Amino acid sequence: MYGRWLFQNLSTDKMAKNDTVHFGILGCANIARKVARAISLSPNATVYAIASRSIQKAEKFATENSLPASVRIYGSYDEVVEDSGVDAVYIPLPTSLHVQWAVTAASKMKHVLVEKPAALDVAELDQILEACEFNGVQFMDGSMWLHHPRTAHMEHLLSLSNSTSIGPVHFIHSTSTMPTTKEFLENNIRVKPELDALGALGDLAWYCIGASLWAKGYKLPTNVTALPDVTRNASGVILSITASLQWDKPNQTVANIHCSFLSHTSMDLAICGSNGSMHLRDFIIPYNETSAKFDLTFGAKFVDLHIGWNVRPEEVHVANNLPQEALMVQEFARLVASIRDCGSHPSIKWPEISRKTQVVVDAVKKSLELGCKPVAL
Amino acid sequence: MYGRWLFQNLSTDKMAKNDTVHFGILGCANIARKVARAISLSPNATVYAIASRSIQKAEKFATENSLPASVRIYGSYDEVVEDSGVDAVYIPLPTSLHVQWAVTAASKMKHVLVEKPAALDVAELDQILEACEFNGVQFMDGSMWLHHPRTAHMEHLLSLSNSTSIGPVHFIHSTSTMPTTKEFLENNIRVKPELDALGALGDLAWYCIGASLWAKGYKLPTNVTALPDVTRNASGVILSITASLQWDKPNQTVANIHCSFLSHTSMDLAICGSNGSMHLRDFIIPYNETSAKFDLTFGAKFVDLHIGWNVRPEEVHVANNLPQEALMVQEFARLVASIRDCGSHPSIKWPEISRKTQVVVDAVKKSLELGCKPVAL
Repeated sequence: MYGRWLFQNLSTDKMAKNDTVHFGILGCANIARKVARAISLSPNATVYAIASRSIQKAEKFATENSLPASVRIYGSYDEVVEDSGVDAVYIPLPTSLHVQWAVTAASKMKHVLVEKPAALDVAELDQILEACEFNGVQFMDGSMWLHHPRTAHMEHLLSLSNSTSIGPVHFIHSTSTMPTTKEFLENNIRVKPELDALGALGDLAWYCIGASLWAKGYKLPTNVTALPDVTRNASGVILSITASLQWDKPNQTVANIHCSFLSHTSMDLAICGSNGSMHLRDFIIPYNETSAKFDLTFGAKFVDLHIGWNVRPEEVHVANNLPQEALMVQEFARLVASIRDCGSHPSIKWPEISRKTQVVVDAVKKSLELGCKPVAL
Repeated sequence: MYGRWLFQNLSTDKMAKNDTVHFGILGCANIARKVARAISLSPNATVYAIASRSIQKAEKFATENSLPASVRIYGSYDEVVEDSGVDAVYIPLPTSLHVQWAVTAASKMKHVLVEKPAALDVAELDQILEACEFNGVQFMDGSMWLHHPRTAHMEHLLSLSNSTSIGPVHFIHSTSTMPTTKEFLENNIRVKPELDALGALGDLAWYCIGASLWAKGYKLPTNVTALPDVTRNASGVILSITASLQWDKPNQTVANIHCSFLSHTSMDLAICGSNGSMHLRDFIIPYNETSAKFDLTFGAKFVDLHIGWNVRPEEVHVANNLPQEALMVQEFARLVASIRDCGSHPSIKWPEISRKTQVVVDAVKKSLELGCKPVAL
């Protein structure tokens, strides 16, 4: 498997370590291939069990993804959550199934790493979060990009309040677009009303809303407005959506997001403050696995006569020792091991991030229902 | 003066040529310094007269900008438009004065190059355009970036309809932001209600609206929606504005614009189609004078497991033999000479571009007045 060689020195001998967290994977979705590899690469995690509704499918997944022979193969999700050897579940199931399986897993004292969007709405997510809190298990959604050191580096720059700061953030622009086929637009799980009723608003806007909140230090916007260009498939599921988030004074900001299954691949993020800006075009999935960059522009102005600029964007490169998805697994497993082995409380950071993101997803949906009127939060 | 040496070989001996167009400049605004230089650099144009309401100011301008001694210095705009040696006027006056002086100049058979925004509203612009049409003189607004060969190169890519096309344009993002001082925000001409009542909607959004229309082949949007984050100064003039332009099916597109006197300098333009995208961050004023680039991404998808991208943005560099403002002057002067010397009709391209831009400016203003409701065009 690509990447095993690249990162193999980082993931050896972990089976022998005490802090290793045993993952059970509920379902064999495409994204589960990436996360199974991430679990394998993470120094404190291991794939312990894999389940599909058909055991043959689970077996095929294990073979195709070179999972060790020791991995338990199940033909039902129940068997995973009942297995006392499983510390945590990773749930890549369609969004409509998240609440059922996350709550069930939490009730069996399994920590929950769930694919994004976390749930269909805040009410469902709250059921999940309450079950996790009640059972003292960790919750995290699968927003991998938040775990890249590039993100941490940018966050540090955003946190500065001295003369090297880009200043209060005034404007945020983000996109999450990917071209799909006609077949996808009508029949893919991600746009099926009974499986992922949020469509692009869940699958894609989760990132852009998350990035906007992140850039604002997770302060919720004052108002959320969907724009009238929404596109839906024959079943009414959103295929493309544009929306604007607004934070009122004293730290006024506007964040525009555009998400679409109809456009060329883009993952743009631009954050503009009073003194500087940061731009990147691969914020969700970096161009490559071992390093990523962003462009930093600071103190830009025009030269005399306005015939050019005094500065150019500076490329800031940030190396990572593991792919961002393995860093996500590593962070999640670290929290799980700390709860399991040291009696720590679950971190509230990750559930709070997910919930705020879901609150804004709900607000965009409500604005659409109201004919694109602003929704106050 | 910087740039004279760089481009001097292109502008020699033009005084001797028959096709040289004689410009009269109405006013000594800062931008007039840049355009006076551009006229000097343009091989078919020359500064013939400069006027200010005070002759001392005009004299100072001529000295500071190294205008030749032969340039006529006037203490009133009337003297310029009355001067039979003047072929064309360049009007860098505050927007509220455009209609008066553009109409007066046209009535004296002077061709009109007017700074953007062209007018305060379509009604005023129509007075100007009707005067130009009636008198058979050329009209053009001062959108310099439209004359850069980079723009032409991108336009060519947008016009393709084969397999190398970026496909129908689905999404356009543009910004025009610049940081200003507290003093500017209350007292600068560009935010004075009696001088430039449109504020950022005129001075900055003219570019973003123009770029959005340009990317859509100057098809007017179906709807224009202002977003509720508008900021105004104590006089009610717009300091920052976000808006969304929407084109309905069959070629559905959404264009978001953000313009502000409150943020760090940005001039972002992103155009995303179904098969590719173009990005640049200096679309209004290129980083430097002799060449400019844009990033082209084509056929991007994720590699197996979605752990990276199959392609990176390609940097497309485009050289220019003159600064874009001199190319603007050159094009305007070419049209003027053709009318003057060959009896050609004025080109309708440039007035149409200005008018469509002004129509959308008006629509954003109207949407604001309606509480950010969509305005149909």
